[in-house]
Amino acid sequence: MKLDDATCRRLFGSARVARLGTIGPNGPHLVPIVFALHGNTIVHAVDQKPKSSRHLQRLRNVTGDPRVAVLADAYDDDWSQLWWVRADGTASVSSADIDLTDAQRMLADRYRQYVTTPPQGPVVAISIGRWTGWAASEAALRPPGST
Amino acid sequence: MKLDDATCRRLFGSARVARLGTIGPNGPHLVPIVFALHGNTIVHAVDQKPKSSRHLQRLRNVTGDPRVAVLADAYDDDWSQLWWVRADGTASVSSADIDLTDAQRMLADRYRQYVTTPPQGPVVAISIGRWTGWAASEAALRPPGST
Repeated sequence: MKLDDATCRRLFGSARVARLGTIGPNGPHLVPIVFALHGNTIVHAVDQKPKSSRHLQRLRNVTGDPRVAVLADAYDDDWSQLWWVRADGTASVSSADIDLTDAQRMLADRYRQYVTTPPQGPVVAISIGRWTGWAASEAALRPPGST
Repeated sequence: MKLDDATCRRLFGSARVARLGTIGPNGPHLVPIVFALHGNTIVHAVDQKPKSSRHLQRLRNVTGDPRVAVLADAYDDDWSQLWWVRADGTASVSSADIDLTDAQRMLADRYRQYVTTPPQGPVVAISIGRWTGWAASEAALRPPGST
């Protein structure tokens, strides 16, 4: 079943992790991100988690082509519980203090690690142009534990 | 910490779900997939799960640009447990009976739903060109329950 925008927003906003898809010189690029959903914007900030050598690829990619897709999904071996939500949008990168301070606050509200160790950025802000979402059943949309 | 190819393959092969990234006319496209890892190939088949209206976008995209990325990751609120593995490769789409039969067998070995309801395809076969992987710690690489 297709999901309406409000349901997409609710499910996506409840996810702890999402995957950021960008376009790079060698094709599509995917990386998991932690994020905060604030109005019509997905906020992500580069943090101190040790990165592989290509850790800035996501930033180079969105500078070259700002079109991005961000996917959150739930997997369960009971396939009646499956859902996914994708946000298609446009990303911008900022190292401005004001943007970083806002992002640190929003992300610290969701991730306790960021209370003591705020991400130092840059900030990636994704303006959402379209929600697309799917669920296998109504049952998949219930919050855990609400059966 | 960066992961070697053997570790990437082991972790990726153990994942129940991955995310397929392709390039479409409007930018990057992401969708969760179930899959089997067979040698150097990721095998996926379109199945009967009810799709949103754009369910064939992944197939149209790889026909236009065969470059794909496939990401598996583990999220935990304990960030020492995080890992992700990405396979960059080239996708091909097949509706040939021989490919479908092979895919049905490999996928049914991993997903019991496919024993009784085999996916009808087409089959998406992704030839892996490069593994990239990262883990927050050695602890993240232990199988669940092996502490």
